[in-house]
Amino acid sequence: MEQRGRLTLPTDADMVEETLRLKELLGADALRDCDGTTMPDELLSADAKKYATYYTTRKDNEWAKANPEEIQQEYLISDRITARSNTLRIRLMKGFHTEQLKVNEIDDPKRWWEVIDRTTGEVVPTDQWEYDKTTGEVEIHTIPYHQYTVSFLAFLIWDPVHMYNFITNDWKDAPHQLTFDVRQPKTQKHVKEKLKQWCIEHPDIDVVRFTTFFHQFTLTFDEQKREKYVEWFGYSASVSPYILEKFEKWVGYKFRPEFIVDQGYHNSMFRVPSKEFKDFIEFQMIEVSKLAKEMVDIVHSYGKEAMMFLGDHWIGTEPYGKYFANIGLDAVVGSVGDGVTMRMISDIKGVKYTEGRLLPYFFPDVFCEGGDPIGEAEENWLKARRAILRSPLDRIGYGGYLKLASEWDGFIDTIQHVVGEFRQIHENMQGSSAYMAPFKVAVLNCWGNLRRWMANQVHHAIWHREIYSYVGVLECLSGMPIDVEFITFEDIKNGILDNGEIKVIINSGDAGTAFSGDKNWIDEKVVTTIRRFVDNGGGFIGVGEPSAYQFEGRYFQLSDVLGVDREMNFSLSTDKYNEMDPEHFILEDIDGEVDFGEGMSRIYAQGENYQILCMDGEYSQLVVNTYGKGHSVYFAGLPYSPQNCRILLRAIYYAAGMEDEMKKFYVTNVDTELAVFEKTKKIAVINNAKEARETDLYVHGKKVMHLDLEPMEMRWVEY
Amino acid sequence: MEQRGRLTLPTDADMVEETLRLKELLGADALRDCDGTTMPDELLSADAKKYATYYTTRKDNEWAKANPEEIQQEYLISDRITARSNTLRIRLMKGFHTEQLKVNEIDDPKRWWEVIDRTTGEVVPTDQWEYDKTTGEVEIHTIPYHQYTVSFLAFLIWDPVHMYNFITNDWKDAPHQLTFDVRQPKTQKHVKEKLKQWCIEHPDIDVVRFTTFFHQFTLTFDEQKREKYVEWFGYSASVSPYILEKFEKWVGYKFRPEFIVDQGYHNSMFRVPSKEFKDFIEFQMIEVSKLAKEMVDIVHSYGKEAMMFLGDHWIGTEPYGKYFANIGLDAVVGSVGDGVTMRMISDIKGVKYTEGRLLPYFFPDVFCEGGDPIGEAEENWLKARRAILRSPLDRIGYGGYLKLASEWDGFIDTIQHVVGEFRQIHENMQGSSAYMAPFKVAVLNCWGNLRRWMANQVHHAIWHREIYSYVGVLECLSGMPIDVEFITFEDIKNGILDNGEIKVIINSGDAGTAFSGDKNWIDEKVVTTIRRFVDNGGGFIGVGEPSAYQFEGRYFQLSDVLGVDREMNFSLSTDKYNEMDPEHFILEDIDGEVDFGEGMSRIYAQGENYQILCMDGEYSQLVVNTYGKGHSVYFAGLPYSPQNCRILLRAIYYAAGMEDEMKKFYVTNVDTELAVFEKTKKIAVINNAKEARETDLYVHGKKVMHLDLEPMEMRWVEY
Repeated sequence: MEQRGRLTLPTDADMVEETLRLKELLGADALRDCDGTTMPDELLSADAKKYATYYTTRKDNEWAKANPEEIQQEYLISDRITARSNTLRIRLMKGFHTEQLKVNEIDDPKRWWEVIDRTTGEVVPTDQWEYDKTTGEVEIHTIPYHQYTVSFLAFLIWDPVHMYNFITNDWKDAPHQLTFDVRQPKTQKHVKEKLKQWCIEHPDIDVVRFTTFFHQFTLTFDEQKREKYVEWFGYSASVSPYILEKFEKWVGYKFRPEFIVDQGYHNSMFRVPSKEFKDFIEFQMIEVSKLAKEMVDIVHSYGKEAMMFLGDHWIGTEPYGKYFANIGLDAVVGSVGDGVTMRMISDIKGVKYTEGRLLPYFFPDVFCEGGDPIGEAEENWLKARRAILRSPLDRIGYGGYLKLASEWDGFIDTIQHVVGEFRQIHENMQGSSAYMAPFKVAVLNCWGNLRRWMANQVHHAIWHREIYSYVGVLECLSGMPIDVEFITFEDIKNGILDNGEIKVIINSGDAGTAFSGDKNWIDEKVVTTIRRFVDNGGGFIGVGEPSAYQFEGRYFQLSDVLGVDREMNFSLSTDKYNEMDPEHFILEDIDGEVDFGEGMSRIYAQGENYQILCMDGEYSQLVVNTYGKGHSVYFAGLPYSPQNCRILLRAIYYAAGMEDEMKKFYVTNVDTELAVFEKTKKIAVINNAKEARETDLYVHGKKVMHLDLEPMEMRWVEY
Repeated sequence: MEQRGRLTLPTDADMVEETLRLKELLGADALRDCDGTTMPDELLSADAKKYATYYTTRKDNEWAKANPEEIQQEYLISDRITARSNTLRIRLMKGFHTEQLKVNEIDDPKRWWEVIDRTTGEVVPTDQWEYDKTTGEVEIHTIPYHQYTVSFLAFLIWDPVHMYNFITNDWKDAPHQLTFDVRQPKTQKHVKEKLKQWCIEHPDIDVVRFTTFFHQFTLTFDEQKREKYVEWFGYSASVSPYILEKFEKWVGYKFRPEFIVDQGYHNSMFRVPSKEFKDFIEFQMIEVSKLAKEMVDIVHSYGKEAMMFLGDHWIGTEPYGKYFANIGLDAVVGSVGDGVTMRMISDIKGVKYTEGRLLPYFFPDVFCEGGDPIGEAEENWLKARRAILRSPLDRIGYGGYLKLASEWDGFIDTIQHVVGEFRQIHENMQGSSAYMAPFKVAVLNCWGNLRRWMANQVHHAIWHREIYSYVGVLECLSGMPIDVEFITFEDIKNGILDNGEIKVIINSGDAGTAFSGDKNWIDEKVVTTIRRFVDNGGGFIGVGEPSAYQFEGRYFQLSDVLGVDREMNFSLSTDKYNEMDPEHFILEDIDGEVDFGEGMSRIYAQGENYQILCMDGEYSQLVVNTYGKGHSVYFAGLPYSPQNCRILLRAIYYAAGMEDEMKKFYVTNVDTELAVFEKTKKIAVINNAKEARETDLYVHGKKVMHLDLEPMEMRWVEY
């Protein structure tokens, strides 16, 4: 068995000997520095690849200060203020931290700012407002009791991630790192030269780990240095007049700040993306990939590898966008928060290898009294492992202060076990893929494949009460023997269902969001195409408010397909006679209650072909429906749990009309799953529970084995 | 103390002696028959007023059968059917009970029916469909995978209330009573003649109790004789080509069936009423009141009183409409389901007296094994009593089979107690009104005063999980020392707030409904008027989704006034730092948890002037906000309970900025309330709990008395 390789460890100046000890113990073949740590010179000759974190947009305050007009910028929106008379003064920086952001007073406000009457949605003409530099306020001629906002440009005078790390680690003396905009010609030239120089000065570094390229995701702090706004997918800090003028030329229409600030929602992923925002993403992808390629080429010209960190300044790289492969990266590394974010990395094409940084990060917010780094590492691995079995990372690693990890009793043992299992998987799969069900499942939303494994999220694997019952669907899918596509409503209209590969469509989200689909559901082509697809034998799985848009007597526009609708009060006068009948293929393995998470209230079954499997009082929660030759399944919510994985797996086979295929490879206990490698004739049976479990293994529909599994065990079986 | 009067008892053919005994025991001064019972001749000479139930639209099958074209009609909408090819046949009567309804094949379908493509909302041209009488189907040329409905006219061949009573009481031999449309000239003439004849033939009857006039609220049964659709406020069964042609002439535009079937929602009260539906109501009110007056005049001409039952065929009478008083009725009687429905009756102007029929109705669905008629009577009285103290009925009564009541052990004692308290109230108030707070509270919705005390309801006091957290607001108000107005958005725009009488506005309901207000909240005039009102010292109380309409960055359009908004996912990226601080005037009396009923999820406080009094995890449930000189209060829901009454009362005084006024008359225990009659210097202190309670009585801000109250007691105190 492999004892070495596929593992990257962080190090630091004061950790030379411990690094070497752990490198041997864990079989690490790569070492790295991190934000706030330093690679000791003594280790540069160690028998391992050396990664160096490289920041293109910061760690050069001298340059930033010398070129203040090329500091990175961000579109901000002021507080909404209600006018009480005919004049209103709005203080722009109220609610923002002035150590992070500074109003851009260099570029013409009348050209780049926008004052909007939010009571009518109308733009206030530029002769109706003035910016007062002395007070930092905008004075507006107003209509009493209308609300106003000012959208304006600000310089990012403290890099948001540096600020975050600074605050989280309670750094004291480190100077605030300013940012600069690599897209602008002067800085671009400087940064390229600097990269060349750096490559020359660091002959022992094998891998330049870009952290990252040019634009930080939106991360803004408030006056109390608390996080104010964070969107991992946000483009609000990827702007400058230089970029926007280029955008105007490219796109052929006039830019408006509203394209970016978006009523103050800043184009959160939950917003149905506007045409203009999609245009802007497209433009940024083109430009960022071009410039990133130039950086990568420089790295290659010095015989080094170029690796990109999927995070921080990743905006515009869009790893599932059509320009990503052009960058020519050797590798992508990203943080593995769960199965979904693991797949977000491991599914990336156009690089030689992928690396996942497992959690926890060795930072004092977890390695502290009351913290549970071992528990976090185990939970993280349980979620990552089942997803890795479907789509493996090539490498794993850790980040932060190695000292914290090495001093935490038992933690090194835990990661030694993790690394061992990771290597086992690679040894047993021998580069082949695990068995997948003989059909594809498509997740349908407004983002599609561009945001593969990113749906329903706010910020990289962060739990929100509003989303966990949807994220669970993806988390379940991330480790299933199911080939998952992410498709858009445009894809539906362009005939993606025609070739018959996709057998089941999943639509999962709240009404009005990009994930449910909003007005797309009153697009005649969309609904007729899906109805025909299901009628002819396809499957449709809806979670939460699928196909929701109040129109012509229905809230769920596919209520005929789903067999359910949501009571929006308008049909309270219509009697429902919903009764539960839980006897169904989907629930055959399930003993206890089904967890619908936050659930969805007011769902009722309707039509003549439904069966209600679960109810909450008079409301239905899990409903199946037949529609012609096809089937649908409705879930009120589906947070991640091993049991819900099993329910969804069965629901998918039911929806696909392929119940008979399910036990081709199968384990009975809901806390267990299996991955089958037909090439090597090996089966991994995993126990996703922290307790021991018994399970029966089925191969080709027949029980072949009974297994007693230790807590969290991964057992390899030959067949 | 009064021992007699103000009470009506039902009787029946076999109950002569028992009726007389109970009449004496309870001091009844009126006797009545009911649907399915008969007034015995022996009682016609009894010392009491005799009411006779009179049906204008039924109990004359001979006439109905002889004039089939003048049978009442109802607009029905077929099932929604998805076309799978270019032709679709929809069987109209599928899902309806053919003993109740029969397709109108007399009037031209192409003139009066409508086939609608519900996938596009477009009307299918009449040359694209045909009605096939032989099968009862409509054949439509369709677009595959579009959904279609047929709106059509049907004759009501079994009166819905007769059918309901028939089914509920398991009548066997009674012939189904057909209906007829009194609005049509032939039937109108017949019915008037018949009424005259009836008056002549019933010299001993004092009161003609119309049950009711001409049009039944919408009540439709399905194939299994189960209720299919019921809307107490519904106009769908008030139509006929005769009426609709008159309507077209009156209104000046072409009628469409869609005005009535309304996408299948049948203009449920929750729908924001369309202009066309409001026009239709106006037309019906004019016509119904005119014709009803003619009937009343006939009754009067025979020296009898005319009483209207507020229910059954009450459609078009609209007791708070501007034509009601013209009818010239002597009295209105209605069913008292709770405090709200009590006020719906007792607040009616334009009649000499009002009568409330208390619950339970003496029907075998309650007077049966497992039934609890005494409990129901007590609950009913507790709710009615506190409302009667604010706006008294003149009389009370009961309905159904007297035999069931008299044979139920203890039931007669219960109603004897109720009747005694009712008479006590009248004796002590001496025709005066109870003390009211020195300001008005306005409930704001799309219906306003036309549907006073009818808001948020589906069917007269029927509990629904979706509405009880809103109905509770009205139920609390129904018994409060608060003068309540019901106003529309038009009233707001027309300056109803200008005279300063209204100090607090309440907006309570789900987004999109007539009760929250939907698009009215993006009406600039509405929001600026209310903002100005609150800024200048007014109060605004929001329950559920007040001012909700997603627009320009906010879901609650008055989020600035309310200090809260609802997280519709778009602002998940924005950090909230909501913390609870329950120390507030509003909660001073409250010890335990606050019950928000179904509540409202995802509410967060925002702005700078809020205080969060209750939270559910990270969501806020009860929030106060200051706005200029004014105040607002947000409730996630407010089901009825004595505790919630107290919280709302305090919230109102807080919102009005009149906290100091509250203890002018006050009792401390939340389960107790008081009504003060300044004219007679008497105070009723009521215990709304079924257990004994202690409470302190405050008069003019000073504690004057400590009271020990028996369960449910009403104690009279002089001051």
